[in-house]
Amino acid sequence: MNLKQLVGIESAKYIKDGMTVGLGTGSTAYFMVEEIGRRMKEEGLNIVGVTTSHATEEQARALGIPLKSIDEVDHVDITIDGADEISADYQGTKGGGAALLFEKIVATYSNENIWIVDESKMVEKLGAFPLPVEVIPYGSDQLLRLFTKKELNPKIRTTADGNPLLTDSKNYIIDLYLKEINDPKELATWLDHQVGVVEHGLFLDITTRVIIGTSESGVKTIEVSR
Amino acid sequence: MNLKQLVGIESAKYIKDGMTVGLGTGSTAYFMVEEIGRRMKEEGLNIVGVTTSHATEEQARALGIPLKSIDEVDHVDITIDGADEISADYQGTKGGGAALLFEKIVATYSNENIWIVDESKMVEKLGAFPLPVEVIPYGSDQLLRLFTKKELNPKIRTTADGNPLLTDSKNYIIDLYLKEINDPKELATWLDHQVGVVEHGLFLDITTRVIIGTSESGVKTIEVSR
Repeated sequence: MNLKQLVGIESAKYIKDGMTVGLGTGSTAYFMVEEIGRRMKEEGLNIVGVTTSHATEEQARALGIPLKSIDEVDHVDITIDGADEISADYQGTKGGGAALLFEKIVATYSNENIWIVDESKMVEKLGAFPLPVEVIPYGSDQLLRLFTKKELNPKIRTTADGNPLLTDSKNYIIDLYLKEINDPKELATWLDHQVGVVEHGLFLDITTRVIIGTSESGVKTIEVSR
Repeated sequence: MNLKQLVGIESAKYIKDGMTVGLGTGSTAYFMVEEIGRRMKEEGLNIVGVTTSHATEEQARALGIPLKSIDEVDHVDITIDGADEISADYQGTKGGGAALLFEKIVATYSNENIWIVDESKMVEKLGAFPLPVEVIPYGSDQLLRLFTKKELNPKIRTTADGNPLLTDSKNYIIDLYLKEINDPKELATWLDHQVGVVEHGLFLDITTRVIIGTSESGVKTIEVSR
Protein backbone atom coordinates (compact mmCIF):
# COMPACT_ATOMS: atom_id res chain seq x y z
CA MET A 1 0.00 0.00 0.00
CA ASN A 2 1.45 3.38 -0.94
CA LEU A 3 1.63 6.24 1.56
CA LYS A 4 -1.22 8.19 -0.03
CA GLN A 5 -3.50 5.19 0.22
CA LEU A 6 -2.37 4.56 3.80
CA VAL A 7 -3.35 8.04 5.05
CA GLY A 8 -6.48 8.13 2.91
CA ILE A 9 -7.77 5.00 4.64
CA GLU A 10 -6.58 6.14 8.09
CA SER A 11 -8.39 9.49 7.78
CA ALA A 12 -11.72 7.84 6.97
CA LYS A 13 -11.70 6.35 10.51
CA TYR A 14 -12.62 9.78 11.87
CA ILE A 15 -15.89 9.75 9.98
CA LYS A 16 -18.87 8.71 12.05
CA ASP A 17 -22.36 7.73 11.03
CA GLY A 18 -24.58 10.68 10.13
CA MET A 19 -21.78 13.13 9.54
CA THR A 20 -21.58 15.73 6.78
CA VAL A 21 -18.15 15.28 5.27
CA GLY A 22 -16.20 17.64 3.03
CA LEU A 23 -14.51 15.56 0.34
CA GLY A 24 -11.20 16.96 -0.83
CA THR A 25 -9.62 16.79 -4.25
CA GLY A 26 -6.41 15.22 -5.50
CA SER A 27 -4.42 12.01 -5.59
CA THR A 28 -4.41 11.50 -1.80
CA ALA A 29 -8.03 12.54 -1.17
CA TYR A 30 -8.95 10.05 -3.90
CA PHE A 31 -8.12 7.14 -1.58
CA MET A 32 -10.13 8.66 1.29
CA VAL A 33 -13.19 8.93 -0.96
CA GLU A 34 -12.71 5.32 -2.10
CA GLU A 35 -12.50 4.18 1.54
CA ILE A 36 -15.71 6.03 2.41
CA GLY A 37 -17.38 4.24 -0.49
CA ARG A 38 -16.11 0.91 0.85
CA ARG A 39 -17.30 1.64 4.41
CA MET A 40 -20.75 2.62 3.13
CA LYS A 41 -21.04 -0.61 1.17
CA GLU A 42 -19.47 -2.99 3.68
CA GLU A 43 -20.26 -1.35 7.03
CA GLY A 44 -23.49 0.45 6.23
CA LEU A 45 -21.97 3.86 7.02
CA ASN A 46 -24.30 6.77 6.25
CA ILE A 47 -22.87 10.16 5.44
CA VAL A 48 -23.56 13.15 3.26
CA GLY A 49 -20.64 14.34 1.17
CA VAL A 50 -19.87 17.92 0.16
CA THR A 51 -17.52 17.95 -2.79
CA THR A 52 -14.76 20.42 -3.62
CA SER A 53 -14.46 19.84 -7.36
CA HIS A 54 -16.20 18.36 -10.35
CA ALA A 55 -13.60 15.56 -10.33
CA THR A 56 -14.41 14.48 -6.77
CA GLU A 57 -18.12 14.87 -7.45
CA GLU A 58 -17.88 12.32 -10.26
CA GLN A 59 -15.88 9.89 -8.13
CA ALA A 60 -18.30 10.18 -5.20
CA ARG A 61 -21.35 9.82 -7.40
CA ALA A 62 -19.95 6.64 -8.93
CA LEU A 63 -19.46 5.25 -5.41
CA GLY A 64 -23.05 6.07 -4.44
CA ILE A 65 -22.12 8.69 -1.83
CA PRO A 66 -25.10 11.07 -1.35
CA LEU A 67 -23.98 14.60 -2.16
CA LYS A 68 -25.07 18.08 -1.20
CA SER A 69 -23.67 21.45 -2.13
CA ILE A 70 -22.10 23.57 0.61
CA ASP A 71 -25.20 25.77 0.42
CA GLU A 72 -27.57 22.92 1.19
CA VAL A 73 -25.99 22.02 4.56
CA ASP A 74 -25.90 23.91 7.81
CA HIS A 75 -22.22 23.15 8.35
CA VAL A 76 -19.67 20.45 7.58
CA ASP A 77 -18.52 18.17 10.43
CA ILE A 78 -15.17 17.14 8.97
CA THR A 79 -13.38 17.98 5.75
CA ILE A 80 -10.58 15.68 4.68
CA ASP A 81 -8.24 16.94 2.00
CA GLY A 82 -4.67 16.75 0.80
CA ALA A 83 -2.13 19.58 0.82
CA ASP A 84 0.78 20.56 -1.39
CA GLU A 85 2.97 21.61 1.52
CA ILE A 86 2.59 21.76 5.29
CA SER A 87 5.02 23.84 7.31
CA ALA A 88 6.47 23.12 10.75
CA ASP A 89 3.71 25.28 12.29
CA TYR A 90 0.99 23.49 10.30
CA GLN A 91 0.16 26.20 7.82
CA GLY A 92 -0.40 24.85 4.33
CA THR A 93 -0.59 25.52 0.64
CA LYS A 94 -3.05 23.88 -1.70
CA GLY A 95 -4.17 24.23 -5.27
CA GLY A 96 -1.79 22.08 -7.28
CA GLY A 97 -4.94 20.47 -8.61
CA ALA A 98 -6.55 23.87 -9.34
CA ALA A 99 -9.45 23.20 -6.93
CA LEU A 100 -8.32 25.62 -4.22
CA LEU A 101 -11.35 27.90 -4.38
CA PHE A 102 -14.02 25.30 -3.68
CA GLU A 103 -11.64 23.53 -1.25
CA LYS A 104 -11.24 26.73 0.73
CA ILE A 105 -14.98 27.47 0.68
CA VAL A 106 -15.77 24.01 2.08
CA ALA A 107 -12.90 24.17 4.61
CA THR A 108 -14.16 27.54 5.86
CA TYR A 109 -17.49 26.05 6.95
CA SER A 110 -16.04 22.85 8.46
CA ASN A 111 -15.78 22.24 12.19
CA GLU A 112 -12.69 20.09 11.65
CA ASN A 113 -10.20 20.01 8.81
CA ILE A 114 -8.02 16.94 8.45
CA TRP A 115 -5.11 17.08 6.04
CA ILE A 116 -3.66 13.88 4.66
CA VAL A 117 -0.21 13.83 3.12
CA ASP A 118 2.80 11.69 2.54
CA GLU A 119 5.95 12.75 4.37
CA SER A 120 7.38 14.53 1.30
CA LYS A 121 4.83 17.34 1.84
CA MET A 122 6.10 18.21 5.32
CA VAL A 123 8.49 21.15 5.06
CA GLU A 124 10.16 23.60 7.40
CA LYS A 125 8.94 26.67 5.50
CA LEU A 126 6.33 26.92 2.73
CA GLY A 127 7.24 28.02 -0.78
CA ALA A 128 9.22 25.35 -2.63
CA PHE A 129 5.95 24.23 -4.20
CA PRO A 130 4.52 27.00 -6.44
CA LEU A 131 1.69 28.94 -4.78
CA PRO A 132 -1.47 29.05 -6.91
CA VAL A 133 -3.54 32.22 -7.12
CA GLU A 134 -6.98 32.04 -8.75
CA VAL A 135 -7.65 35.22 -10.72
CA ILE A 136 -10.36 36.75 -12.91
CA PRO A 137 -9.28 36.39 -16.57
CA TYR A 138 -10.01 40.09 -17.30
CA GLY A 139 -6.97 41.92 -15.96
CA SER A 140 -4.87 38.79 -15.47
CA ASP A 141 -2.02 40.13 -17.62
CA GLN A 142 -1.97 43.27 -15.46
CA LEU A 143 -1.77 41.06 -12.36
CA LEU A 144 1.09 39.10 -13.96
CA ARG A 145 2.98 42.38 -14.43
CA LEU A 146 2.23 43.46 -10.86
CA PHE A 147 3.38 40.10 -9.46
CA THR A 148 6.54 40.29 -11.59
CA LYS A 149 7.26 43.77 -10.26
CA LYS A 150 6.83 42.44 -6.71
CA GLU A 151 9.36 39.67 -7.59
CA LEU A 152 6.81 36.91 -7.03
CA ASN A 153 7.90 35.00 -10.18
CA PRO A 154 4.41 34.46 -11.59
CA LYS A 155 3.53 32.09 -14.38
CA ILE A 156 0.06 31.51 -15.78
CA ARG A 157 -0.93 27.86 -15.63
CA THR A 158 -1.69 26.40 -19.05
CA THR A 159 -3.18 23.21 -20.40
CA ALA A 160 -1.38 20.86 -22.80
CA ASP A 161 -2.50 22.99 -25.77
CA GLY A 162 -0.83 26.08 -24.31
CA ASN A 163 -4.04 27.94 -23.43
CA PRO A 164 -4.68 29.19 -19.89
CA LEU A 165 -6.17 26.48 -17.69
CA LEU A 166 -9.74 27.27 -16.62
CA THR A 167 -10.81 26.45 -13.06
CA ASP A 168 -14.26 25.07 -12.18
CA SER A 169 -15.30 28.75 -11.83
CA LYS A 170 -13.83 29.63 -15.26
CA ASN A 171 -10.98 31.64 -13.77
CA TYR A 172 -7.23 31.42 -14.42
CA ILE A 173 -4.50 30.17 -12.10
CA ILE A 174 -1.27 32.14 -11.70
CA ASP A 175 1.44 30.09 -9.95
CA LEU A 176 3.96 32.02 -7.89
CA TYR A 177 7.43 30.42 -7.87
CA LEU A 178 8.59 31.82 -4.55
CA LYS A 179 11.08 29.21 -3.28
CA GLU A 180 10.46 30.41 0.27
CA ILE A 181 7.53 32.22 1.91
CA ASN A 182 8.91 34.06 4.90
CA ASP A 183 5.67 35.58 6.15
CA PRO A 184 2.63 33.61 4.91
CA LYS A 185 0.11 35.86 6.70
CA GLU A 186 1.54 39.02 5.22
CA LEU A 187 1.50 37.50 1.73
CA ALA A 188 -2.07 36.20 2.20
CA THR A 189 -3.30 39.62 3.30
CA TRP A 190 -1.59 41.33 0.38
CA LEU A 191 -3.07 38.86 -2.10
CA ASP A 192 -6.55 39.18 -0.55
CA HIS A 193 -6.41 42.92 -1.24
CA GLN A 194 -5.45 42.72 -4.90
CA VAL A 195 -8.28 43.49 -7.30
CA GLY A 196 -8.88 40.52 -9.61
CA VAL A 197 -7.55 37.94 -7.14
CA VAL A 198 -10.38 35.54 -6.32
CA GLU A 199 -8.52 33.31 -3.88
CA HIS A 200 -5.04 31.98 -3.18
CA GLY A 201 -3.56 28.71 -2.05
CA LEU A 202 -2.43 29.77 1.40
CA PHE A 203 -4.57 27.86 3.90
CA LEU A 204 -3.69 29.45 7.22
CA ASP A 205 -4.96 28.47 10.67
CA ILE A 206 -7.27 25.92 9.10
CA THR A 207 -6.12 22.36 9.77
CA THR A 208 -6.97 20.73 13.09
CA ARG A 209 -5.37 17.34 12.42
CA VAL A 210 -2.58 16.27 10.10
CA ILE A 211 -2.16 12.63 9.11
CA ILE A 212 1.24 11.90 7.62
CA GLY A 213 2.27 8.74 5.83
CA THR A 214 5.91 7.86 6.52
CA SER A 215 7.86 5.04 4.95
CA GLU A 216 9.80 4.33 8.15
CA SER A 217 7.11 4.38 10.82
CA GLY A 218 3.77 4.21 9.04
CA VAL A 219 1.03 6.69 9.91
CA LYS A 220 1.76 9.64 12.19
CA THR A 221 -1.19 11.75 13.40
CA ILE A 222 -0.77 15.23 14.80
CA GLU A 223 -3.50 17.17 16.58
CA VAL A 224 -3.24 20.89 15.97
CA SER A 225 -4.86 23.13 18.54
CA ARG A 226 -6.36 26.32 17.14
CA MET B 1 -29.99 68.99 -20.43
CA ASN B 2 -30.22 66.76 -17.37
CA LEU B 3 -27.49 66.68 -14.72
CA LYS B 4 -26.15 63.29 -15.79
CA GLN B 5 -25.75 64.50 -19.36
CA LEU B 6 -24.16 67.73 -18.13
CA VAL B 7 -21.37 65.98 -16.18
CA GLY B 8 -20.95 63.30 -18.83
CA ILE B 9 -20.14 65.96 -21.42
CA GLU B 10 -18.01 67.99 -19.00
CA SER B 11 -15.86 64.97 -18.09
CA ALA B 12 -15.04 64.23 -21.74
CA LYS B 13 -13.16 67.56 -21.89
CA TYR B 14 -10.33 65.95 -19.91
CA ILE B 15 -9.70 63.45 -22.67
CA LYS B 16 -6.84 64.38 -24.99
CA ASP B 17 -5.83 62.97 -28.33
CA GLY B 18 -4.01 59.64 -28.13
CA MET B 19 -5.17 58.75 -24.64
CA THR B 20 -6.23 55.32 -23.43
CA VAL B 21 -9.54 55.89 -21.68
CA GLY B 22 -11.39 53.62 -19.22
CA LEU B 23 -15.07 53.79 -20.10
CA GLY B 24 -17.35 53.35 -17.11
CA THR B 25 -20.78 51.78 -16.93
CA GLY B 26 -24.19 53.15 -16.02
CA SER B 27 -26.67 55.90 -16.81
CA THR B 28 -24.20 58.77 -16.24
CA ALA B 29 -21.19 57.15 -17.92
CA TYR B 30 -23.50 56.57 -20.88
CA PHE B 31 -23.48 60.29 -21.72
CA MET B 32 -19.69 60.48 -21.43
CA VAL B 33 -19.31 57.64 -23.93
CA GLU B 34 -21.78 59.34 -26.29
CA GLU B 35 -19.78 62.60 -26.04
CA ILE B 36 -16.53 60.80 -26.85
CA GLY B 37 -18.24 59.35 -29.90
CA ARG B 38 -19.34 62.85 -30.94
CA ARG B 39 -15.84 64.32 -30.46
CA MET B 40 -14.28 61.52 -32.49
CA LYS B 41 -16.70 62.15 -35.33
CA GLU B 42 -16.80 65.96 -35.25
CA GLU B 43 -13.35 66.89 -33.91
CA GLY B 44 -11.29 63.96 -35.16
CA LEU B 45 -10.33 62.90 -31.60
CA ASN B 46 -8.34 59.65 -31.48
CA ILE B 47 -8.51 57.48 -28.39
CA VAL B 48 -8.48 53.85 -27.39
CA GLY B 49 -11.26 52.79 -25.03
CA VAL B 50 -11.07 50.13 -22.32
CA THR B 51 -14.54 49.02 -21.33
CA THR B 52 -15.84 47.94 -17.94
CA SER B 53 -18.88 45.90 -19.00
CA HIS B 54 -20.49 44.17 -21.94
CA ALA B 55 -23.10 46.95 -22.00
CA THR B 56 -20.53 49.73 -22.43
CA GLU B 57 -18.63 47.61 -24.94
CA GLU B 58 -21.71 47.45 -27.15
CA GLN B 59 -22.35 51.18 -26.87
CA ALA B 60 -18.72 52.04 -27.67
CA ARG B 61 -18.56 49.64 -30.58
CA ALA B 62 -21.69 51.16 -32.10
CA LEU B 63 -20.06 54.61 -31.87
CA GLY B 64 -16.91 53.36 -33.60
CA ILE B 65 -14.62 53.82 -30.56
CA PRO B 66 -11.58 51.49 -30.96
CA LEU B 67 -11.48 49.14 -27.98
CA LYS B 68 -8.82 47.13 -26.19
CA SER B 69 -9.05 44.91 -23.14
CA ILE B 70 -7.26 45.99 -19.97
CA ASP B 71 -4.70 43.27 -20.71
CA GLU B 72 -3.82 44.70 -24.12
CA VAL B 73 -2.76 48.13 -22.83
CA ASP B 74 0.20 49.15 -20.72
CA HIS B 75 -1.93 51.40 -18.53
CA VAL B 76 -5.04 53.58 -18.73
CA ASP B 77 -4.59 57.37 -18.78
CA ILE B 78 -8.02 58.33 -17.45
CA THR B 79 -11.04 56.32 -16.41
CA ILE B 80 -14.36 58.13 -16.23
CA ASP B 81 -17.16 56.41 -14.37
CA GLY B 82 -20.23 57.07 -12.27
CA ALA B 83 -20.65 56.27 -8.58
CA ASP B 84 -23.59 55.27 -6.39
CA GLU B 85 -22.46 57.41 -3.45
CA ILE B 86 -19.51 59.69 -2.73
CA SER B 87 -18.77 60.66 0.86
CA ALA B 88 -17.52 63.97 2.20
CA ASP B 89 -13.94 62.58 2.08
CA TYR B 90 -14.38 61.36 -1.52
CA GLN B 91 -14.59 57.65 -0.88
CA GLY B 92 -17.21 55.94 -2.99
CA THR B 93 -19.44 52.97 -3.56
CA LYS B 94 -20.22 51.48 -6.94
CA GLY B 95 -21.92 48.44 -8.33
CA GLY B 96 -25.57 49.36 -8.57
CA GLY B 97 -25.25 48.28 -12.19
CA ALA B 98 -23.49 45.04 -11.20
CA ALA B 99 -20.31 45.98 -13.13
CA LEU B 100 -18.17 46.68 -10.06
CA LEU B 101 -15.58 43.97 -10.69
CA PHE B 102 -14.49 45.08 -14.15
CA GLU B 103 -14.90 48.74 -13.10
CA LYS B 104 -12.51 48.18 -10.20
CA ILE B 105 -10.03 46.26 -12.34
CA VAL B 106 -9.89 49.10 -14.89
CA ALA B 107 -9.78 51.79 -12.16
CA THR B 108 -6.85 50.01 -10.49
CA TYR B 109 -4.66 50.42 -13.57
CA SER B 110 -5.69 54.02 -14.34
CA ASN B 111 -3.45 57.00 -13.69
CA GLU B 112 -6.52 59.19 -13.10
CA ASN B 113 -10.04 58.29 -12.07
CA ILE B 114 -12.77 60.83 -12.69
CA TRP B 115 -16.16 60.24 -11.11
CA ILE B 116 -19.21 61.90 -12.58
CA VAL B 117 -22.39 62.20 -10.55
CA ASP B 118 -25.43 64.34 -10.01
CA GLU B 119 -25.63 66.07 -6.65
CA SER B 120 -27.96 63.42 -5.19
CA LYS B 121 -24.97 61.02 -4.95
CA MET B 122 -22.98 63.30 -2.65
CA VAL B 123 -23.47 62.18 0.96
CA GLU B 124 -21.88 62.83 4.32
CA LYS B 125 -21.33 59.13 5.06
CA LEU B 126 -21.60 56.12 2.74
CA GLY B 127 -24.19 53.41 3.30
CA ALA B 128 -27.70 54.61 2.46
CA PHE B 129 -27.27 53.00 -0.96
CA PRO B 130 -26.93 49.20 -0.65
CA LEU B 131 -23.32 48.03 -0.94
CA PRO B 132 -22.86 45.31 -3.59
CA VAL B 133 -20.55 42.37 -2.97
CA GLU B 134 -19.71 40.07 -5.89
CA VAL B 135 -19.47 36.47 -4.69
CA ILE B 136 -18.79 33.00 -6.07
CA PRO B 137 -22.15 31.18 -6.44
CA TYR B 138 -20.79 28.08 -4.64
CA GLY B 139 -21.00 28.96 -0.94
CA SER B 140 -23.11 32.08 -1.47
CA ASP B 141 -25.82 30.87 0.93
CA GLN B 142 -23.14 30.35 3.59
CA LEU B 143 -21.93 33.90 2.98
CA LEU B 144 -25.52 35.17 3.29
CA ARG B 145 -25.72 33.50 6.71
CA LEU B 146 -22.36 34.92 7.75
CA PHE B 147 -23.35 38.43 6.63
CA THR B 148 -26.67 38.08 8.48
CA LYS B 149 -24.83 37.03 11.65
CA LYS B 150 -22.60 40.09 11.28
CA GLU B 151 -25.79 42.22 10.98
CA LEU B 152 -24.92 43.40 7.47
CA ASN B 153 -28.52 42.90 6.21
CA PRO B 154 -27.61 40.97 3.06
CA LYS B 155 -29.96 40.27 0.18
CA ILE B 156 -29.06 38.38 -2.97
CA ARG B 157 -29.76 40.43 -6.09
CA THR B 158 -32.25 38.75 -8.41
CA THR B 159 -33.52 39.28 -11.92
CA ALA B 160 -37.19 39.83 -12.81
CA ASP B 161 -37.78 36.05 -12.85
CA GLY B 162 -36.58 35.70 -9.26
CA ASN B 163 -33.31 33.92 -10.06
CA PRO B 164 -29.97 35.27 -8.82
CA LEU B 165 -28.58 37.89 -11.18
CA LEU B 166 -25.37 36.76 -12.89
CA THR B 167 -22.55 39.26 -13.36
CA ASP B 168 -20.40 39.42 -16.50
CA SER B 169 -18.11 36.92 -14.68
CA LYS B 170 -21.06 34.61 -13.85
CA ASN B 171 -20.97 35.43 -10.16
CA TYR B 172 -23.76 36.55 -7.80
CA ILE B 173 -24.26 39.96 -6.20
CA ILE B 174 -25.16 40.21 -2.51
CA ASP B 175 -26.34 43.71 -1.58
CA LEU B 176 -25.67 44.84 1.99
CA TYR B 177 -28.36 47.19 3.35
CA LEU B 178 -26.21 48.97 5.89
CA LYS B 179 -27.80 52.43 6.18
CA GLU B 180 -24.48 53.82 7.40
CA ILE B 181 -20.88 52.66 6.96
CA ASN B 182 -18.91 54.02 9.87
CA ASP B 183 -15.51 52.66 8.90
CA PRO B 184 -15.30 51.92 5.15
CA LYS B 185 -11.67 50.72 5.32
CA GLU B 186 -12.37 48.27 8.10
CA LEU B 187 -15.37 46.87 6.22
CA ALA B 188 -13.39 46.67 2.95
CA THR B 189 -10.57 44.76 4.64
CA TRP B 190 -12.99 42.36 6.30
CA LEU B 191 -14.79 41.70 3.02
CA ASP B 192 -11.48 41.22 1.16
CA HIS B 193 -10.63 38.43 3.59
CA GLN B 194 -13.86 36.47 3.26
CA VAL B 195 -13.55 33.30 1.23
CA GLY B 196 -15.94 33.39 -1.73
CA VAL B 197 -15.98 37.20 -1.96
CA VAL B 198 -14.63 38.17 -5.37
CA GLU B 199 -14.88 41.95 -4.97
CA HIS B 200 -16.99 44.60 -3.25
CA GLY B 201 -18.34 48.00 -4.16
CA LEU B 202 -16.18 50.07 -1.80
CA PHE B 203 -13.87 52.15 -4.01
CA LEU B 204 -11.47 53.70 -1.53
CA ASP B 205 -8.65 56.16 -2.27
CA ILE B 206 -9.35 55.85 -5.97
CA THR B 207 -10.92 58.98 -7.40
CA THR B 208 -8.70 61.92 -8.29
CA ARG B 209 -11.42 64.24 -9.62
CA VAL B 210 -15.14 64.43 -8.92
CA ILE B 211 -17.47 66.25 -11.31
CA ILE B 212 -20.84 67.01 -9.76
CA GLY B 213 -23.92 68.21 -11.57
CA THR B 214 -25.97 70.62 -9.44
CA SER B 215 -29.31 72.09 -10.33
CA GLU B 216 -28.51 75.44 -8.70
CA SER B 217 -24.99 76.19 -9.92
CA GLY B 218 -24.30 73.82 -12.78
CA VAL B 219 -21.09 71.78 -12.86
CA LYS B 220 -18.81 71.71 -9.83
CA THR B 221 -15.39 70.06 -10.20
CA ILE B 222 -13.33 68.95 -7.22
CA GLU B 223 -9.68 67.89 -7.42
CA VAL B 224 -8.87 65.20 -4.89
CA SER B 225 -5.23 64.90 -3.90
CA ARG B 226 -4.10 61.35 -3.10
